Amino acid sequence: MEKIFEKIEEFNLGAFFVSKIENVRYLTNFTGEEGFAVVVPPEIYLFVDSRFTEQANKEVTKDVKIIEYAGDIASNVKNVLLKHKVHFLGVEEYKINLHTYRALKNLGFLVIAPLTNFVEEIRMVKTDEELEKIRKACSISTSAFLDTIKLLKPGITETDIASELEYRFKKYGGEKPSFTTIVASGERGSLPHGVASLNTIKEHVPIVFDFGVFFEGFASDTTRVVSIGDVDSEVKKAYSVIENAQKLGREKAKAGLKASELDKLVRDYIANNGLGEYFKHGLGHGVGLEIHELPYVNANSPYILQENMVITIEPGVYFEGRFGLRLEDTVIIKEDSIENLIDLPHDIIVV
Amino acid sequence: MEKIFEKIEEFNLGAFFVSKIENVRYLTNFTGEEGFAVVVPPEIYLFVDSRFTEQANKEVTKDVKIIEYAGDIASNVKNVLLKHKVHFLGVEEYKINLHTYRALKNLGFLVIAPLTNFVEEIRMVKTDEELEKIRKACSISTSAFLDTIKLLKPGITETDIASELEYRFKKYGGEKPSFTTIVASGERGSLPHGVASLNTIKEHVPIVFDFGVFFEGFASDTTRVVSIGDVDSEVKKAYSVIENAQKLGREKAKAGLKASELDKLVRDYIANNGLGEYFKHGLGHGVGLEIHELPYVNANSPYILQENMVITIEPGVYFEGRFGLRLEDTVIIKEDSIENLIDLPHDIIVV
Repeated sequence: MEKIFEKIEEFNLGAFFVSKIENVRYLTNFTGEEGFAVVVPPEIYLFVDSRFTEQANKEVTKDVKIIEYAGDIASNVKNVLLKHKVHFLGVEEYKINLHTYRALKNLGFLVIAPLTNFVEEIRMVKTDEELEKIRKACSISTSAFLDTIKLLKPGITETDIASELEYRFKKYGGEKPSFTTIVASGERGSLPHGVASLNTIKEHVPIVFDFGVFFEGFASDTTRVVSIGDVDSEVKKAYSVIENAQKLGREKAKAGLKASELDKLVRDYIANNGLGEYFKHGLGHGVGLEIHELPYVNANSPYILQENMVITIEPGVYFEGRFGLRLEDTVIIKEDSIENLIDLPHDIIVV
Repeated sequence: MEKIFEKIEEFNLGAFFVSKIENVRYLTNFTGEEGFAVVVPPEIYLFVDSRFTEQANKEVTKDVKIIEYAGDIASNVKNVLLKHKVHFLGVEEYKINLHTYRALKNLGFLVIAPLTNFVEEIRMVKTDEELEKIRKACSISTSAFLDTIKLLKPGITETDIASELEYRFKKYGGEKPSFTTIVASGERGSLPHGVASLNTIKEHVPIVFDFGVFFEGFASDTTRVVSIGDVDSEVKKAYSVIENAQKLGREKAKAGLKASELDKLVRDYIANNGLGEYFKHGLGHGVGLEIHELPYVNANSPYILQENMVITIEPGVYFEGRFGLRLEDTVIIKEDSIENLIDLPHDIIVV
């Protein structure tokens, strides 16, 4: 927690008000659905309503002070802010709602600084304990995936397969899917966010599986292409571009490289192989308490990769109305390389 | 959509800016994860980024105008607001974030009215089509529940049973759980929000199942107490109070009754039977596109029950460290009665 105290000092803030629940969890270890944190160095206060007091007492990190509140959050934090003589308060510009902002302002003694990614940037570099949870999430989702693809047969629906996969997430000890499971076969694969549908799966077409699970709050994220029987040569050709591009990304990623540079290396490779116009999204994103978090790995990312950041590497190509292909691993950035957390073959998996 | 146009006129607004995604869905039929709506009678505009344009085109209600945007939402709605000469804009006080509020304000030509429950109050009374979806969600979750409890045996974990239940939700055509499934046995039942844990289930103790599923965006919500073998007389005695209290709630609920009055009738019954201090939450809540929505059914609810509102009736008692009991149906309010959407016995279900 030293990092947030230092950052508050660096920004010359009196305190920082945390509304985003993942940031509250990060700072306090409280896993409930609703709560606020106020960081006033050297104290961290967690505000919860009576539904969550028992849970908070069980969960929070030593030294976090729990305050049970009722009614308006602003009037409840007032006393803490007064006690610590806070007059300059940082808030989360994209997360605090207008009601709470106005109520804080109406307290009458605060200058409020709207800030972006204040806690998220601290969360980018993971601790060993956090890495271990992400490793475990990846291993659970991999085991579940390997079991599930054995059930593929012509005529089964995408949702049936998705529900078999999610069922096995829980059986292997996962909490819940880290996002809506994608099982998109044939032309539905050309929708980058095409969640499982009632479409039935046919032979010889690529099926995009994009899936992940939470373990102790931390996410995994994997994409593989599977087919029942061999795919045709057109699909194979496009896939080999994606497979090599993704390999290039894994080979080049390391601490010190700009995230935007990594995106460019892979993007250029795909463009040089004639498929540039079909790769329509960023190369990847951070993974942690959120499935999509900093650092974003795309052309506009301002971040430099650092040791123990966790990112995805996921080039894809989408041929509208025909098919789509994507290959994705979740990896840890190391000093001179990566640790790949997804122990699966990179080829199309033919069942 | 006439209702929202009328309300905008009634409030003398030029337009209403919708940030809450469930409200965006309600007004446009768009089911994606991110988007904004601007209601400027007689038009409704849906703003989505490029990820969702294809989906929006497939889904939206006739007459909704789709605008694909990039970058800041405020600068994108500017042209629409100028075209319609809007100077007085309603926003959702609890949902709009500080960034968007400030950006709208900085456009320089708007007076902004922060409003609460503007769309939510319209959503309280359901259409026939919405009721049909909630009926179906209730029927899916009931079928899944009846199949799942056959698997109960001493030593199985709560999470195992929860994952079997959620698996069957999908098999029966549900989308996803409408909240984290609660399977809380023995003393864990005394936590009103005790989600399934790795605790193993024992014989002769009450197991609280609280579960629901989404179907076409609409939720169901049910609670039943199950046991493996008979429970002891203390549990039976407390349960009979809850069972009779819940029955009273179902008998008294009808259009024209204040929600707070319904809460009081049931609460008084439980208090008169000596368990008042153990019933710690409101009697129920509205169910629709959100699992908890208006009208709340508690002592402070300002709402009068109206025909085709959908609410839960769910009294419960919690004996800390010992056990908990709750019984819940989702019901439609009718002119002189209710339609109960949960076709399950109200007794403790002994397997």
